[in-house]
Amino acid sequence: MSQAVPLTDSVASHPFDQASPAELQAAVDIVKQRFSPELELFWYAGNVQEPPKKVMQAYLRAERAGKPVSPPPRRIGILVGIVHTPRNFEVLVDLSEQAIVSFKELSRIYQPPLTMDEVEIARKVTLSSDLIKAEADRMGVPMDLVFAEPWDYGRDSDEEYPRMSQIFMYMLNPETRDPESNPYSWPLDFMAVVDLEKRAVVKVIHLNLGVDTISRDIKNGAYKSSKPVEPEYVHSLQSQKTRTTMKPLRVLQPEGPSFDVLGNLIEWEKWRFRVGFNWREGFVLYDVTFDGREVLYRMALAEMFVPYGDPRSPLQRKSAFDFGNIGAGNAANNLGLGCDCLGVIKYLDGYLLGGDGKPKTVPNVVCIHEVDAGIQWKHTNTVTGKPVVVRRRQLQLQMIITVANYEYAFYYVFDQSGEIMFDTLATGILSTTPIDPTNKDPCSYGTRVAPGVLAPYHQHIFSLRIDPCIDGDGNTVQVVDSVPMPLDKETNPYGVGYTTESYNVKHSGTENIDVERGRVFKIVNPNKINPTTLQPVGYKLVPVASQMILSDPNSWHGRRSNYCTAPIWVTKYKDDELYPAGKYTSQSIGDDSLRHYVSRKDPVENEDIVVWHTFGLTHNPRPEDFPIMPAETSRVMLKPNGFFEFNPTLDVPESKQSFNQSVSYEDSKALSSKNKSCCKI
Amino acid sequence: MSQAVPLTDSVASHPFDQASPAELQAAVDIVKQRFSPELELFWYAGNVQEPPKKVMQAYLRAERAGKPVSPPPRRIGILVGIVHTPRNFEVLVDLSEQAIVSFKELSRIYQPPLTMDEVEIARKVTLSSDLIKAEADRMGVPMDLVFAEPWDYGRDSDEEYPRMSQIFMYMLNPETRDPESNPYSWPLDFMAVVDLEKRAVVKVIHLNLGVDTISRDIKNGAYKSSKPVEPEYVHSLQSQKTRTTMKPLRVLQPEGPSFDVLGNLIEWEKWRFRVGFNWREGFVLYDVTFDGREVLYRMALAEMFVPYGDPRSPLQRKSAFDFGNIGAGNAANNLGLGCDCLGVIKYLDGYLLGGDGKPKTVPNVVCIHEVDAGIQWKHTNTVTGKPVVVRRRQLQLQMIITVANYEYAFYYVFDQSGEIMFDTLATGILSTTPIDPTNKDPCSYGTRVAPGVLAPYHQHIFSLRIDPCIDGDGNTVQVVDSVPMPLDKETNPYGVGYTTESYNVKHSGTENIDVERGRVFKIVNPNKINPTTLQPVGYKLVPVASQMILSDPNSWHGRRSNYCTAPIWVTKYKDDELYPAGKYTSQSIGDDSLRHYVSRKDPVENEDIVVWHTFGLTHNPRPEDFPIMPAETSRVMLKPNGFFEFNPTLDVPESKQSFNQSVSYEDSKALSSKNKSCCKI
Repeated sequence: MSQAVPLTDSVASHPFDQASPAELQAAVDIVKQRFSPELELFWYAGNVQEPPKKVMQAYLRAERAGKPVSPPPRRIGILVGIVHTPRNFEVLVDLSEQAIVSFKELSRIYQPPLTMDEVEIARKVTLSSDLIKAEADRMGVPMDLVFAEPWDYGRDSDEEYPRMSQIFMYMLNPETRDPESNPYSWPLDFMAVVDLEKRAVVKVIHLNLGVDTISRDIKNGAYKSSKPVEPEYVHSLQSQKTRTTMKPLRVLQPEGPSFDVLGNLIEWEKWRFRVGFNWREGFVLYDVTFDGREVLYRMALAEMFVPYGDPRSPLQRKSAFDFGNIGAGNAANNLGLGCDCLGVIKYLDGYLLGGDGKPKTVPNVVCIHEVDAGIQWKHTNTVTGKPVVVRRRQLQLQMIITVANYEYAFYYVFDQSGEIMFDTLATGILSTTPIDPTNKDPCSYGTRVAPGVLAPYHQHIFSLRIDPCIDGDGNTVQVVDSVPMPLDKETNPYGVGYTTESYNVKHSGTENIDVERGRVFKIVNPNKINPTTLQPVGYKLVPVASQMILSDPNSWHGRRSNYCTAPIWVTKYKDDELYPAGKYTSQSIGDDSLRHYVSRKDPVENEDIVVWHTFGLTHNPRPEDFPIMPAETSRVMLKPNGFFEFNPTLDVPESKQSFNQSVSYEDSKALSSKNKSCCKI
Repeated sequence: MSQAVPLTDSVASHPFDQASPAELQAAVDIVKQRFSPELELFWYAGNVQEPPKKVMQAYLRAERAGKPVSPPPRRIGILVGIVHTPRNFEVLVDLSEQAIVSFKELSRIYQPPLTMDEVEIARKVTLSSDLIKAEADRMGVPMDLVFAEPWDYGRDSDEEYPRMSQIFMYMLNPETRDPESNPYSWPLDFMAVVDLEKRAVVKVIHLNLGVDTISRDIKNGAYKSSKPVEPEYVHSLQSQKTRTTMKPLRVLQPEGPSFDVLGNLIEWEKWRFRVGFNWREGFVLYDVTFDGREVLYRMALAEMFVPYGDPRSPLQRKSAFDFGNIGAGNAANNLGLGCDCLGVIKYLDGYLLGGDGKPKTVPNVVCIHEVDAGIQWKHTNTVTGKPVVVRRRQLQLQMIITVANYEYAFYYVFDQSGEIMFDTLATGILSTTPIDPTNKDPCSYGTRVAPGVLAPYHQHIFSLRIDPCIDGDGNTVQVVDSVPMPLDKETNPYGVGYTTESYNVKHSGTENIDVERGRVFKIVNPNKINPTTLQPVGYKLVPVASQMILSDPNSWHGRRSNYCTAPIWVTKYKDDELYPAGKYTSQSIGDDSLRHYVSRKDPVENEDIVVWHTFGLTHNPRPEDFPIMPAETSRVMLKPNGFFEFNPTLDVPESKQSFNQSVSYEDSKALSSKNKSCCKI
């Protein structure tokens, strides 16, 4: 390791390490003792509870200085419920003390997440229900073709109600009957509601097949959708042939990667940071430093809300907090070598707690690799003609999650220039709903993506939680606009002058993006002055300028997700305030959220602050998004802005053919035709 | 070639081919005959005049259908002046007729571009001037260290004045005296004005070294800047060592590229288009089709304005139309193999006309290569667990230009999904101005990037000219917003519904970006209905949401660049309307521009239209941008939006390890440590 610091502990026991299978097992064993052995328990989740920031900062600074102190106690949070009852519990276990330190029963308005194991239970319950069989019979769909997709139920009343799931119903391709066929091309005309406490279908709902909002019964027998032009995304099932025009493009790193990984510690090109993992946020960045200087204490995507804009009952409930309701870690893909990234790849495994209380390992939930991202800088001296060009090498950490129909790929991208980027890619399959294929009326809240298949408008609204530590403690958010100087005979006689107007955010609250004023959000450390600029050192947040939530603030979508109403939120740091839509989002009523945190009006100038960036996509589907969606990318950037005295990539070597070994088109053509003729002989 | 159409003509004579050296020579020879042989002529530029669009559309459609018609006449435009006079001429030559078809003398308010050859003349004039020698003497700077940088003079009065250049003055590093040292780290305290008609320095101006706008004389002898912490970008001159931590990352394409090039025709993954080149716009896209369907008739970056926000005389003149004043083609770099891109690369040469009337070839002005851009789409079936992932291959065309201190890299990026992107990277070196290093006053219009070196605030404002032909003739711009449905018991009873509100642009004019309303600009063909959506086929323009120009509209910056006041402009197509700040931008007064085109209020619904997108960077320099600037990227996208019936990348093969041949970190480490031990033995 280039600038390795001796680690105090074994690789497996850093305070920011995820809970190991052994730790999860130990915690489960301790929690079990609290329940009568005859009770059937369902285990939702287990994860490390991070030590208080003050404790960890001291620990990390000592560790980086090579003066290790002993690690704080290791604590595991467990979510567990008693099957067939409404009773769920939040338990905190101290592993060193081998004891429960906190045990709390949750009210029904604080529901644990709908984990993958519970999704499977809901699916089985649905497919074995007589109510569902009767509906399939009515439609003439054999049960082995029926595809059930459990979603979080959401909320439709202020009253307390059981833990539930709403089930969207599809079928496999009736022609091929292939289990890999695309169900979203064949939406059925009904849906179901499962009571997860009873573990039974409690309601079947017939869907409106028109484009208006007037509820109507299904007449003239069952609805049948027409066959889409190309309903399948799996290659072997498509009616068209796979193209053969694309030649291989490989990334070769003959001397290996430029990064080092030791446990959860990554070092690459002056960057040093730790990667955590938990069931909820998936991967998390910790203790990010550049050339020994602190930049971030912690950064993670904290929540994601997908409110649908279809106004018709019962689809007004369609909404998903994919992090709080399901968990990005729970939904993380096993990333296959050579499929999800190119080059030399380091994979990290994830540990989760199964519904049966047994730890499970999901291999390869994070991949780490380098990319060439084009040109970092170039200049040609206009007198001598000498060009100097430096390429832009980046380190990418990738996690991909599958939440029912949709996929999201998330990337932390580290650049040699001191930039950190967070990329979000939305892909996967649109959540579809049936529509009468003979109906040709314009639809005001959805797009016809195939005959008989409607993809409703929806938004994806993310919250990136940035816990900065710009060159140490005491940070301030500066809002800086670029504005014309007023015309003035002395200060701006020619009318070309422009200047910046700025203010410091003094109390926790929200800020707006202002493209017309070229607004920039700086996070500065007023205690450190950059000797070049004579201004405080800082980083700039380059937000994604995007539309906020369209739902009415008093609707359930709106009440439950008020973090989606403003792009920038600043709070004073408080341990355990990690989730902008609240700790428990399933069936939530919106009473625990970022809005409540900022309402404290805490001082946030030269304080320990957290910056939350809400951004998103207003996704009015295109037919091109079906039967699977080309990825839609959003990029948030953190750019040094007076953090360094000069460009930190000056010492990156010049881009040279001897290093890069590119090939001219003509040479390549000659070579490949030669190869071809070889093959022919 | 995958879907090759037999070409009617030889490779060199397509109507969209740039003027060949022979054609330039022939045109020059014809124009010369019009002048008395004793006159000394200076040749500014020569380029093909594109045939009328109506003629070309018929030609291209016949050509693509394999029914070739004879090409239109070949015409070359020449700009030439008589040395030591104010007389400049615009001449159009018909090569088939071997005759001048138009001959026009320009008024002084229509100045030809300041070409590279003329920049050299201005530089020589400056460095040999006694006025300059006296100033260098005053400062104690030996003349062999003085670095002169000629810029376009711009305009500071309504009156007619000579063709001029303003010269910013720097010096080489006084310690190393190396010709490759970075002059922008050592700004001198004076500048010069050269009369290009007289070819003489006519004025020396002492610069203000304070941060206020009060003009003052240089007191206490000459100004001397302090030594910057790291003044150099050339590696061998830096005080720090070049890092050795970065391992090679190579792009290997063992079977060659997936694209074919024949003359100016490129075919890649269902895309087919032509690449042109001229002195002004550099590379231009023509006749872009996807799977045989028309998308664009022509696209090019049409102008770029860099207004500086420093209000102090004489710096209020500092502004550059880099395309109209200098020419992107004139400034295009010779891109070296393995330096500016990776993989298998096809280069195109550019042909220019020298000041001496001789054609010259600039090799490798455009590079064409493929990149892997991550994931195109992915889905994992939640029941079977089967993942399918398709990677995102793109074709990139790159051009990099050097305009004095700055560099810009431009990219056309074609995606298999039908997307076309235009990327702009700003890099190179900040234009600096001297400041008294002992002065510590806050500066309201610039950043101190080194002791004694101020980088003034400025903007880079681009205009991308998009001449669409979405699925044929008759296009309309639709402005589409996403808005909440009003609360209504019947149509939106739960308050979650949202819908789109749209209008067609009916007359030529401007449109604004509206992030809060999620505004989208579609270019549709109302004559073609997508059978899936039942809506007109279309593409969506995803603009760069950016701040418009900050200069006062009545300032010279403002008057000359009114295209910089609105992000979206729609005009009815008219031959020869290619330049939003006018055909002649050097010393322009702003009387020929996009504002005048739109003021015709032409009908633009279901018409032959042009969409112009103004976007830019408000660049308030960071110290990290010095002594060279990490590239700052902007991306404009054209995305199919109901152009296709379904995702056009469905038939792209699945991403497989056998194709990609990635390597695990552990295998790579084992391999490289094995290699290392081998070396040691």
